[in-house]
Amino acid sequence: MNGLERLSLNQITTKGWSLEEAVRGCVEAGIPAIGLWRDKVAEIGTARAAALVREAGLAVSSLCRGGFLTAQGEQGTREAIEDNRRALEEAAELGTDTLVMVVGGLPGESRDLVGARARVAELLAELAPYAGELGVRLAIEPLHPMFCADRAVVSTLGQALDLAEQHPADQVGVVVDSYHIWWDPQLSEQIARAGERIASYQVCDWTLPLPADALLGRGHVGDGCIDFGSLGALVADAGYTGWIEVEIFNQTVWDTPGEQTLRTMAERHRAHVAVG
Amino acid sequence: MNGLERLSLNQITTKGWSLEEAVRGCVEAGIPAIGLWRDKVAEIGTARAAALVREAGLAVSSLCRGGFLTAQGEQGTREAIEDNRRALEEAAELGTDTLVMVVGGLPGESRDLVGARARVAELLAELAPYAGELGVRLAIEPLHPMFCADRAVVSTLGQALDLAEQHPADQVGVVVDSYHIWWDPQLSEQIARAGERIASYQVCDWTLPLPADALLGRGHVGDGCIDFGSLGALVADAGYTGWIEVEIFNQTVWDTPGEQTLRTMAERHRAHVAVG
Repeated sequence: MNGLERLSLNQITTKGWSLEEAVRGCVEAGIPAIGLWRDKVAEIGTARAAALVREAGLAVSSLCRGGFLTAQGEQGTREAIEDNRRALEEAAELGTDTLVMVVGGLPGESRDLVGARARVAELLAELAPYAGELGVRLAIEPLHPMFCADRAVVSTLGQALDLAEQHPADQVGVVVDSYHIWWDPQLSEQIARAGERIASYQVCDWTLPLPADALLGRGHVGDGCIDFGSLGALVADAGYTGWIEVEIFNQTVWDTPGEQTLRTMAERHRAHVAVG
Repeated sequence: MNGLERLSLNQITTKGWSLEEAVRGCVEAGIPAIGLWRDKVAEIGTARAAALVREAGLAVSSLCRGGFLTAQGEQGTREAIEDNRRALEEAAELGTDTLVMVVGGLPGESRDLVGARARVAELLAELAPYAGELGVRLAIEPLHPMFCADRAVVSTLGQALDLAEQHPADQVGVVVDSYHIWWDPQLSEQIARAGERIASYQVCDWTLPLPADALLGRGHVGDGCIDFGSLGALVADAGYTGWIEVEIFNQTVWDTPGEQTLRTMAERHRAHVAVG
């Protein structure tokens, strides 16, 4: 027992590393799982990536990411479906049961948020049965409302669950990501409601001030204002016993040598997340 | 009828203007109301500010702002109560029935969001009867969740209503501000629920990219991705017939001559807000 039994490195956290480097880094740091990104997998091909991870003895906690379902028109819809079917196939081949879904923002100059959200529901319904066939879950990730316009029109855990509950729990689940949902006044009831729908628990901290690129404001666990003790208890009480992925978008972290980032991750995990 | 009958200039939109300049600007632009800020009022004193606005024939749509109720400890609490009592008195003297409340973020290094929210509820209960005596409403403003840590732990309209409904409707209401709530999946039901609790309707647009200072990302109505037709219809259907305040935090707008800003405001109001 090194206290890292449930820790997973989401690959974006060590953005400068190739997949080979990330796999080696996890093994050396005693981190037993990795969340993969499709662009990094594509650099070496899915089959080779799957073999590399398997031979290293790592679990694949998730594949990031599918989604981007809000395009308007027939062609946009068809392309989104095809791309997500490929992503599900890649997830299955990589040996993970979780495809993280960032659903997409308002398309083009559109102001029709209600319409964009309706398209997300429609496309999820098209994808869910295929996910079920492959044994992979579509894990809807609510993104912080500040990304509603440009990245994800699913903004709260409650809204993600409204979508997920249209489908069997083994086909569509949700991601609980500390950064995106920590502020939610309905946090405790929605995490309890999520229960077996929780497909992934991702952690990083909310730090201030927000950087010039709002996407990159995430900090190591413990560097910001999120109460990981309370959040972790809610997730545990909901019955989740799966991987805890560290996913950090932050230029300073990206500029840090990967080995050091993994050491910090492990320390913070033991201090703030793996307790209790 | 010039189409501006319900338009109000929130004074922050012309940040470079003194109160005298803003009053003169409104009169010249045919804008019948102004939302005042306490710091601008303090520059000339409440009595003189009240006389100035009254003599110009302007209505005062709101006073910005009370709030900041999350301080910990006895002294912080006492100071918050005293400051908000003064703000209520100023509102009454200025002739407005609406004190906009920005409730405050996490105090100091605290991570206790639940506790901070509980203190907001406690202090509102202390202030509400005095508001009632003065004929001024505490108007709780939910701020966008990206301001939860540092500015307002009230993040959704539903949460603001949960707080407001603990008190008579003439003592505690809510602010519907397009920028802060446009993303909310519960928007239509919560605005309908708000009904007579809507004490103020403030408008500005969500524009991308977010600027380096996230506070300053707001655009003129029509420059961003908010559907003001739909939002206005929801607010009207809820029964709100009061002022529509334009409140823009944006360095480019602040660097623009005030007269030009008011012309843009009036045009956009006619094109996007006063329709239907």
